[in-house]
Amino acid sequence: MYLAKQGHEVAGADLFLRREWVKEVGSWSATPIRSMQERLEAFEETFGEKFDFYEGDLRDSGFVYRCFEEFRPDAVVHLGEQPSAPYSMIDLEHTAFTQINNVQGTLNILYAMRDICPEAHLVKLGTMGEYGTPNIPIPEGFFEIEYRGHKDTLPFPRQPGSFYHLSKVHDSHNITLACKIWGLKSTDLMQGVVYGTWTDETQADERLVTRFDFDGVFGTVVNRFCVQADIGYPLTIYGKGGQTRGYINLRDSIRCMELATENPPAAGEYRVFNQFTETFSIQEIADNVTEAASRLGIEVTVEHLVNPRVESEEHIYEADHRRLLELGLEPHRMVDALEGMMQDLMVYKDREAARKEVIAPEIQWRGIRDRAGRRE
Amino acid sequence: MYLAKQGHEVAGADLFLRREWVKEVGSWSATPIRSMQERLEAFEETFGEKFDFYEGDLRDSGFVYRCFEEFRPDAVVHLGEQPSAPYSMIDLEHTAFTQINNVQGTLNILYAMRDICPEAHLVKLGTMGEYGTPNIPIPEGFFEIEYRGHKDTLPFPRQPGSFYHLSKVHDSHNITLACKIWGLKSTDLMQGVVYGTWTDETQADERLVTRFDFDGVFGTVVNRFCVQADIGYPLTIYGKGGQTRGYINLRDSIRCMELATENPPAAGEYRVFNQFTETFSIQEIADNVTEAASRLGIEVTVEHLVNPRVESEEHIYEADHRRLLELGLEPHRMVDALEGMMQDLMVYKDREAARKEVIAPEIQWRGIRDRAGRRE
Repeated sequence: MYLAKQGHEVAGADLFLRREWVKEVGSWSATPIRSMQERLEAFEETFGEKFDFYEGDLRDSGFVYRCFEEFRPDAVVHLGEQPSAPYSMIDLEHTAFTQINNVQGTLNILYAMRDICPEAHLVKLGTMGEYGTPNIPIPEGFFEIEYRGHKDTLPFPRQPGSFYHLSKVHDSHNITLACKIWGLKSTDLMQGVVYGTWTDETQADERLVTRFDFDGVFGTVVNRFCVQADIGYPLTIYGKGGQTRGYINLRDSIRCMELATENPPAAGEYRVFNQFTETFSIQEIADNVTEAASRLGIEVTVEHLVNPRVESEEHIYEADHRRLLELGLEPHRMVDALEGMMQDLMVYKDREAARKEVIAPEIQWRGIRDRAGRRE
Repeated sequence: MYLAKQGHEVAGADLFLRREWVKEVGSWSATPIRSMQERLEAFEETFGEKFDFYEGDLRDSGFVYRCFEEFRPDAVVHLGEQPSAPYSMIDLEHTAFTQINNVQGTLNILYAMRDICPEAHLVKLGTMGEYGTPNIPIPEGFFEIEYRGHKDTLPFPRQPGSFYHLSKVHDSHNITLACKIWGLKSTDLMQGVVYGTWTDETQADERLVTRFDFDGVFGTVVNRFCVQADIGYPLTIYGKGGQTRGYINLRDSIRCMELATENPPAAGEYRVFNQFTETFSIQEIADNVTEAASRLGIEVTVEHLVNPRVESEEHIYEADHRRLLELGLEPHRMVDALEGMMQDLMVYKDREAARKEVIAPEIQWRGIRDRAGRRE
């Protein structure tokens, strides 16, 4: 919607699997998300512009080839992947689904670009989670190092913490090769954790509202904490809460995709932007949410749970994020957004309260399961 | 066969896909490879020992669980992957098949180990090709570096040169996580290019002969050059011939798997051994084969082809390979093996000559293909 409003000719493609996955884990979007048909109509009524929409499966190469053939894109913004770490850790079936879905979809896009629009720019959503939490600073994708008297600029080592994050690492490696051998160009956006309830476009009409997940599987932490504060559910910190990550406002995330898309790399170049604007520990986020809530007269409690994940709970986290700022990104601050988010979400309080039993983390990284791969 | 002879209780599992793939690209094994039934009978007759065999598909998790359930392995030696770089570069279908086949099979093994035999040791066949050809020395899997004033020991960056090599990188990353979160133990063997016609066991009875591929897709370079010399086909060097890699004799490769298997790492440890014994450039191999052939009275010519791959043709190559030597590996030298190989292969000269049209490399890494992904 944002790109179309900026005057770009846009087409979308989706299979609406996210809706199925969230239903599968027993939840729904806090915001009642409309059908694509209804959203397209609302967009046209509101902004006076149409865009093409293709319903289909990225795992079906015929579908991807048909879309590209018809639309002939100059840029492909690829967001079509299973995005939840916990979902990928449920069992073997969900691990394999996540990796095969994400890898096959990206391979189909790479081949379709090679054959139909090799000059187009692939803007791919990766994740800061690809890097893990090494004990050295994290550059934007590549680093120059000296080792035993030799120098080279190399891809930064990846140490992701879930099978989902691994699927993004697999993609990054596959895209790197496609750029090298076929001369494709790509920007891999290592995105931090996104938070936020709206963009200018979703505000324009209630039918354009974006989805907002708050369950323990698909809800990202800031979003989830805002819902937890609203419905009187303690903020749930996994372990010590020293886990530090990069964060980005939904509006900034959309702007980053525009900046990346409008400033393509050279043919054959694979580049990486770290797409976040601030870093916080989980404890700091809980503190910020608690404080913002108290300004709204809401009293919040905090609960430390046994960490269901296997991760460092105290570590350094120094990650570069200059390149998008250099292109013109003007970041919003999380502390300025939290009160507004909680107020926006109050409207959907009943829908949130009705699914509060799926807020707690149920999926254990260490996996205590029966032999068919089902969790016990 | 080797492990069973050393007194280990061994079971095998296979779906015989390699035979199909080689047939698909128009070739066959120089050695007439027997059915598994016949080979098992020959083994029992020759060595007085049986071993269990499971015919099935590693991509079928039910099959993997049943095998592990019944056999309860202490160690799992995983060689069951699509192993050809050119095959993985044929088109989209072959790329996706290679990656999904290899990743799914390994994920099934990891989950089955977690659920059935978490104390077992996974000995996984990787490839030196995972590292690519960086401009710094290549350690065994991990390196300690200092970067912007901080130190860490990190996985060495992977820069593989084909979708096949990428599938092995995906596996390595997946195995690393499984060791970390489930406490599994694994040795990832970054194997160099294997050459050789026999092991002590395959020598014992002609029905136990191992397969020997020499086509442009599945034939590795030393093996293929020996066949080319035998049938009067010029040795085909791709590009300049400065491409340098690690090599290992088939007998040493088998011994390495024994050494790795018998010396497992601690629970939770993922370790890497670089499994090769010598490095050569392609030009050096051509020279060595030419010289060995001349000692047999065979005159060999050499032809430089336009490189079908995208790779550096001149580069440094300093790769560690100490850990298997420290465990007791006593390497054979390539120069001592070449004459014998050519003599062994002479027996199958007619079978080789009958397939000489598939020796030339046909698959182009840069890919000139029609839009359905078929090569033109």
